[in-house]
Amino acid sequence: MTAPFDRLYGLEVLDHGAEVVRAQVAVRDEVKQPAGLVHGGVFAAMAESMATLGARRPGTTAKGLSSQTSFLRPILDGTIHATARRRHSGRTTSVWEVEITDDDGRLCALVRVTVATS
Amino acid sequence: MTAPFDRLYGLEVLDHGAEVVRAQVAVRDEVKQPAGLVHGGVFAAMAESMATLGARRPGTTAKGLSSQTSFLRPILDGTIHATARRRHSGRTTSVWEVEITDDDGRLCALVRVTVATS
Amino acid sequence: MTAPFDRLYGLEVLDHGAEVVRAQVAVRDEVKQPAGLVHGGVFAAMAESMATLGARRPGTTAKGLSSQTSFLRPILDGTIHATARRRHSGRTTSVWEVEITDDDGRLCALVRVTVATS
Amino acid sequence: MTAPFDRLYGLEVLDHGAEVVRAQVAVRDEVKQPAGLVHGGVFAAMAESMATLGARRPGTTAKGLSSQTSFLRPILDGTIHATARRRHSGRTTSVWEVEITDDDGRLCALVRVTVATS
Repeated sequence: MTAPFDRLYGLEVLDHGAEVVRAQVAVRDEVKQPAGLVHGGVFAAMAESMATLGARRPGTTAKGLSSQTSFLRPILDGTIHATARRRHSGRTTSVWEVEITDDDGRLCALVRVTVATS
Repeated sequence: MTAPFDRLYGLEVLDHGAEVVRAQVAVRDEVKQPAGLVHGGVFAAMAESMATLGARRPGTTAKGLSSQTSFLRPILDGTIHATARRRHSGRTTSVWEVEITDDDGRLCALVRVTVATS
Repeated sequence: MTAPFDRLYGLEVLDHGAEVVRAQVAVRDEVKQPAGLVHGGVFAAMAESMATLGARRPGTTAKGLSSQTSFLRPILDGTIHATARRRHSGRTTSVWEVEITDDDGRLCALVRVTVATS
Repeated sequence: MTAPFDRLYGLEVLDHGAEVVRAQVAVRDEVKQPAGLVHGGVFAAMAESMATLGARRPGTTAKGLSSQTSFLRPILDGTIHATARRRHSGRTTSVWEVEITDDDGRLCALVRVTVATS
């Protein structure tokens, strides 16, 4: 179900439906940037994978059209927790908002992803 | 110079200065999403690494504040080519625009990254 | 309280605190674009005014750093309803998410605004 | 050619083709926010109007799908100068980047607009 890139950085999908997808990534050195924080690309990758997973239907493919991440608070260790919620469904696109939190439940990043299905 | 996450997905920095950073990633299965395209998170990761590399000064750290990616054309194989250009320098932030192209020079993604230095 | 530009397009602030700001604009011809829909710039303007209003403290000024709008469903008449919620407070910035709905309560636009206070 | 909202805030289109659109707005009190700067909603409005103007073809309508503005330097007086350039053309969407400068040619805002034509 997860993609090669998702396996590379360690995405674990906990739960997924058409409206909500939950997933996590265990923090380890190889997801970090030089200052020792989780690399922002990991948040963007998680959000896109989760949104396209939620948007996909049998017989369709889904791909990201755009992605906007605001980095609010660094994550240094523990687990990256993410919840994606569908906010809009159009004919060929859907819009998802993804919240990234740390082990203490603090909001660390917000990502909005627009997905095209075809 | 590159970070653990950059080594994981294969970032190669070709050239970097205070105004322009050039880098590439060789496409292989492990940077792909389920439909066989390069995963959008790879573009976001490249852009953030390149912008923070360009923004960093001796004795400072740089981290992403926000990142906005528009996916324009999928990349399926070959090499992902990226050029980051500084568009603005504030007192504590800089804004970078990153163009991602394929082996035929076609524009595949645009990323705008805002970086904080401290 | 509202600014000259807010008076020009007709912002009415209904309620504002440090965490939530509610406002509306009555739809009339002069807030429309050529196809007869409310102009997207109106949503962006409302969101920025509401976020800076919520972020401002006595003796400080607040201004927008970035703004990202997703247009989900056009509004043609009635009233534009908007609710801004603070999602993050940093030392000098705050991040707000603004939901725009129509008279039937349907989500029409999502705006994320980052505000600097000084 | 300009829309009611464009007349309200004073958009003057100088030049428009399928690839580049140039326009300006004279700064006056009624386009300002409370701190005396040009309101960010004006930049977003200009960018969306210019991108949809460039994207529109005879017999089609164009509307904004998303808009992302980075505010780099305030404008207090003079003229707001804007140039929109088409960066991508898909089957039903196009992506435009808009640069906003002041009378001294300094970059004051960057806007990326995605437009749908139908």
